[in-house]
Amino acid sequence: MKVIDQALLKKVIIERPLSSHKGDYGRLLLIGGTYPYGGAIIMAALGAVRSGAGLVTVATDKENIPALHSHLPEAMAFDLGDKQLLEQQFQKANIVLVGPGLVDDERGEELLQTVFHHSNQDQTLILDGGALSIFAKTGMKFPKAQLVLTPHQREWQVLSGLDLDSQGTEETGETLKRFSSGTILVQKGPDTRIWQAGHADFYQLSVGGPYQATGGMGDTLAGMIAGFAGQFPQVSLYDRVTVATYLHSAIAQKLSEDNFVVLPTTISQHIPAFMKKIQKDT
Amino acid sequence: MKVIDQALLKKVIIERPLSSHKGDYGRLLLIGGTYPYGGAIIMAALGAVRSGAGLVTVATDKENIPALHSHLPEAMAFDLGDKQLLEQQFQKANIVLVGPGLVDDERGEELLQTVFHHSNQDQTLILDGGALSIFAKTGMKFPKAQLVLTPHQREWQVLSGLDLDSQGTEETGETLKRFSSGTILVQKGPDTRIWQAGHADFYQLSVGGPYQATGGMGDTLAGMIAGFAGQFPQVSLYDRVTVATYLHSAIAQKLSEDNFVVLPTTISQHIPAFMKKIQKDT
Amino acid sequence: MKVIDQALLKKVIIERPLSSHKGDYGRLLLIGGTYPYGGAIIMAALGAVRSGAGLVTVATDKENIPALHSHLPEAMAFDLGDKQLLEQQFQKANIVLVGPGLVDDERGEELLQTVFHHSNQDQTLILDGGALSIFAKTGMKFPKAQLVLTPHQREWQVLSGLDLDSQGTEETGETLKRFSSGTILVQKGPDTRIWQAGHADFYQLSVGGPYQATGGMGDTLAGMIAGFAGQFPQVSLYDRVTVATYLHSAIAQKLSEDNFVVLPTTISQHIPAFMKKIQKDT
Amino acid sequence: MKVIDQALLKKVIIERPLSSHKGDYGRLLLIGGTYPYGGAIIMAALGAVRSGAGLVTVATDKENIPALHSHLPEAMAFDLGDKQLLEQQFQKANIVLVGPGLVDDERGEELLQTVFHHSNQDQTLILDGGALSIFAKTGMKFPKAQLVLTPHQREWQVLSGLDLDSQGTEETGETLKRFSSGTILVQKGPDTRIWQAGHADFYQLSVGGPYQATGGMGDTLAGMIAGFAGQFPQVSLYDRVTVATYLHSAIAQKLSEDNFVVLPTTISQHIPAFMKKIQKDT
Repeated sequence: MKVIDQALLKKVIIERPLSSHKGDYGRLLLIGGTYPYGGAIIMAALGAVRSGAGLVTVATDKENIPALHSHLPEAMAFDLGDKQLLEQQFQKANIVLVGPGLVDDERGEELLQTVFHHSNQDQTLILDGGALSIFAKTGMKFPKAQLVLTPHQREWQVLSGLDLDSQGTEETGETLKRFSSGTILVQKGPDTRIWQAGHADFYQLSVGGPYQATGGMGDTLAGMIAGFAGQFPQVSLYDRVTVATYLHSAIAQKLSEDNFVVLPTTISQHIPAFMKKIQKDT
Repeated sequence: MKVIDQALLKKVIIERPLSSHKGDYGRLLLIGGTYPYGGAIIMAALGAVRSGAGLVTVATDKENIPALHSHLPEAMAFDLGDKQLLEQQFQKANIVLVGPGLVDDERGEELLQTVFHHSNQDQTLILDGGALSIFAKTGMKFPKAQLVLTPHQREWQVLSGLDLDSQGTEETGETLKRFSSGTILVQKGPDTRIWQAGHADFYQLSVGGPYQATGGMGDTLAGMIAGFAGQFPQVSLYDRVTVATYLHSAIAQKLSEDNFVVLPTTISQHIPAFMKKIQKDT
Repeated sequence: MKVIDQALLKKVIIERPLSSHKGDYGRLLLIGGTYPYGGAIIMAALGAVRSGAGLVTVATDKENIPALHSHLPEAMAFDLGDKQLLEQQFQKANIVLVGPGLVDDERGEELLQTVFHHSNQDQTLILDGGALSIFAKTGMKFPKAQLVLTPHQREWQVLSGLDLDSQGTEETGETLKRFSSGTILVQKGPDTRIWQAGHADFYQLSVGGPYQATGGMGDTLAGMIAGFAGQFPQVSLYDRVTVATYLHSAIAQKLSEDNFVVLPTTISQHIPAFMKKIQKDT
Repeated sequence: MKVIDQALLKKVIIERPLSSHKGDYGRLLLIGGTYPYGGAIIMAALGAVRSGAGLVTVATDKENIPALHSHLPEAMAFDLGDKQLLEQQFQKANIVLVGPGLVDDERGEELLQTVFHHSNQDQTLILDGGALSIFAKTGMKFPKAQLVLTPHQREWQVLSGLDLDSQGTEETGETLKRFSSGTILVQKGPDTRIWQAGHADFYQLSVGGPYQATGGMGDTLAGMIAGFAGQFPQVSLYDRVTVATYLHSAIAQKLSEDNFVVLPTTISQHIPAFMKKIQKDT
């Protein structure tokens, strides 16, 4: 078990080079928020943009766009049913997050197939929520893209075949070998662990708590992971995902000192300040 | 008359167990906000989520969903006319709040009948606003669910048959015996009282005031009651409802020191901090 | 010229009686915000609710309701084209504000005719923006309701026949005699004056300034006037309107110490705190 | 290279004359935000209104209006497809900003042609985003209006024919001579420069940084430029544009002391306070 310490945080969240532009901080495509889960992709987008993502585009139900823009005019947004635009945006993106608030139905399956089919090895593909259950169910082949999976316990059960009582570190480590090499697993739970297929060891969170037990918490995390994945090329993707996951819970823990519960959108509001604090601290 | 003291507050609002997840803090279904009362269910949802509810789903008019999500992407939301989804979500819920902004018309009646018919004894069913007048009018049989009623004075008049001048504690206590055993009554007014059928005694609020005399105040309270009902299993539902009702007015009273009026949405913003203060105070 | 002093402010903004409810603080109907002026009625509603209005209902374009509710779920809102609901709500209201963002066209004329026709002597009818130009153009008879007019200089020109250079106090006082007795005139301009037909004297603002020169400022003021009109029965309507008008600019002036411009919605945010300060100050 | 110093800032941002009204601070028409770029024109409108623009009207997709109004009821908004209203508003405007979130397609071309054709010499026409690529592509004749162009590096490449490595000050200065006399160029990049055709010298920003590398940053800047263009007649348009551009990055720089990234909408929130600080500082 590896420790997430201040050194790791500071290795990831470094000052940006002066001569850089928004294209250097990720071209993200976030897909999800289909009826009746529109709010999920809004929370993911908030997490991504506030983590510093350069360009964030959201594919969701058309009816969901006004609410998204009322939170975040910074994100571009289009109708998930608009296949031409989807393909276009997919090709431009280097980070693709699929799943927050994605309904697990025929349309979802078709969508995930398209995503898997078109993804290339230069892309990072993050599967969350609905995309995980579709992935598990349909037994898809692994895509060419670098894969990040963010299951909670039940989703990991479906993906791995390990029931809730058998999701210990040994079993999880063993099972992960079945996934394509380099696949990153954010195994969410009371003790969230971050794994990478091919590595025996894993990171385990020492922050976070039950004040985070609210719907939408995972959507925000998925967005933050996407946001970090598009930045910080000086470290491995594994380190970026780990620090995003840590930060999400560390913010909640800090805010919980004065709040009985900490909402997902409240976490997102505090990301820029917490990141700066890490970067500045000596 | 029982006193709501610091001991009761601290008995209810206790620190959450470390190993818990969102399913442990209530699966709420909130039904209402039909045209032209869309805002009411938004305020109820804000009250519920900010009180710490684990999962909140809102059934409302489709046109009302963007405004809801602009306040609260944390809530799932679907079209109240979508009967299949309604039934599905109803079965999943352990706390159901019906009535904030529910129009008292044929559709409302049909809806309440469905709710009563499908509700089971493991559910808590909170009736507020429009649901109370429908309930009174149609003389429905009591549902199997544990019932919480939140009438203001005129609604209590219709429900109980007691006119405004005869709603003293004795009459109310007597009338309440006609309701199914265990029914909780939040009798709203200048001196809000919280009763439970089968108990002679009642709680009476010593906080709150005319700075709360604004449309939407009751919707927020109903949401908070729903939020508390899904948590704190270490105490009785009666205690949870009582503390939610107290907290709603206690927050308003505190904020009124610096504000001539205190809006419902402003109260909701301060719930997590006030709950933490109670939990931390020694 | 009468002075608006601390004594007047404190005479109007007094502590609310303990035993009171939302019906005691005004039943307001706000009509306007027709395409392309949807924002105007939103700002009016914010001004009204934050001034302490008990119940606020907005009649506007249906497409405008989500944006209104994203600011203010506290307000009920319905489609202005829904004539049955309009009539119903009109009868319930004791304060009616017509005009913020009301297009001066055939539909507007028809609407104002309906309002004038149905209004009764127990109602206060505030005409603002589009309603003023329609009123001037169609030479309507005066309604039975107590009238409040809130023209800026060009609107006053059309209403009074006085051109911009002839709107001095003498000419205005003289012209006002043509209006029904008791009519209150909020004559907006660099030196805003508040008149009442039948009184020779007038109040003149000594607060406010060019940091308020932004679209929407008048809509917020109209909402605040409506909010005050429904409260404070211990003083005359003239005094309520005067203090609302004063407060609107006094808040802006205070905020302008740290802001180059002060937006209408920013003023509304600060109303409850400023009112409390006046009520508390000794 | 000219320095943007405190003297220039204070020469531009001066106290407003007491006797003035909203018409004195610009009648702005902002055109853009077509699907899927709705958020862009929202950010531009926020930048304009918070900079102190007197009257701001937005022409965008009808579906985009609720989200705009949820941010900014202060802006009037209409459907870009409504040609009559567009023409009407165009004639009223003295400042026209075209391009934030404007799709470069046939509709966009037709729109820009209309704008160019109807514009007159008393108007300031700011071209941004999509309007720049359309302008470059179609080789339109210069309009009669005073022109302001706000290209980033790639847009400047298309407009000027200078590739990314040849956009030095000498080449840019030379190329600018081809544009109509007086044309102002905000050449965005790591070293943003502000030029005016006919002047050899230019201003160069010494503030701003990579914490601004987020989608929407340019839309906010375009809105601020439009906001400043409608005010401060005591200085040249060139000075107004320069100070708006400076302020945009100066706010970001200040906020970046405590935030790893600074979002466009966050910059807009702080405009009134920063402008006041400049005006007050001695």
